[in-house]
Amino acid sequence: MTSAKSFKLTPHHGGLSVPNLEASIAWYRDILGFDLEKTGEIPPAHARYAFLARDAFRIELIEVAGAHPMPDDRRYPNQDIATHGTKHLAFIVEDLRGLLANLKEKGVDVAMDLFEIDNSYVTFIRDNSGILIELIEIRETG
Amino acid sequence: MTSAKSFKLTPHHGGLSVPNLEASIAWYRDILGFDLEKTGEIPPAHARYAFLARDAFRIELIEVAGAHPMPDDRRYPNQDIATHGTKHLAFIVEDLRGLLANLKEKGVDVAMDLFEIDNSYVTFIRDNSGILIELIEIRETG
Repeated sequence: MTSAKSFKLTPHHGGLSVPNLEASIAWYRDILGFDLEKTGEIPPAHARYAFLARDAFRIELIEVAGAHPMPDDRRYPNQDIATHGTKHLAFIVEDLRGLLANLKEKGVDVAMDLFEIDNSYVTFIRDNSGILIELIEIRETG
Repeated sequence: MTSAKSFKLTPHHGGLSVPNLEASIAWYRDILGFDLEKTGEIPPAHARYAFLARDAFRIELIEVAGAHPMPDDRRYPNQDIATHGTKHLAFIVEDLRGLLANLKEKGVDVAMDLFEIDNSYVTFIRDNSGILIELIEIRETG
């Protein structure tokens, strides 16, 4: 039997269901610097998708015809985690305070302003459709 | 104003809300080979959390006191994406067919058996609390 360490496991993407594929492709390109890699369809799910890449990681955007809106509590980090399931993607940046100032200038919706926890600075922003993204700066120690 | 490419953006973790922190730490250790990195508390959210690492990527497990169960449609990939929001984490493996056989021997719950799409093999499994994880093998071409 294969041990849990005997195979490689490389992060490929986080999948997001969005109301407007083109609008979300533009947001992730313009705000977070992801490039469109490919698009396609999932006929059994009545879905179109796009993979966006930045270095070796991707975001998969999926637009499903007639999909239900995101529950409103998913817009707020502490309410979102109060329902079990996959919650958010988190990325490390180098100068979170500076980046956050720039994102605010660009009109990005901030769900939780910069706070300090566990030797890190953390903030939650919302993408163009209200989906939470966590940004983290690991503070230098010593 | 900062361009969307002018800052580094490194994947840090995917956040999952789970009913039993210890049971999920054990599942991600034993099945997917993640090591416990640290644990902590988020008092304003009535939450305990654990970061599990495998190479440079992490899973954040969060247990919130009195959290709501995951909606049942989130257990099925094509139903899950029919509601907007953050949906699933996906990882690349090298021999998906072999790995999947081993995961089944270990009793792992398979949500969508191996299928072929876009020159890849893909499957969805469920973790111990029913949360979907996508596994992908990129097929060699040419």
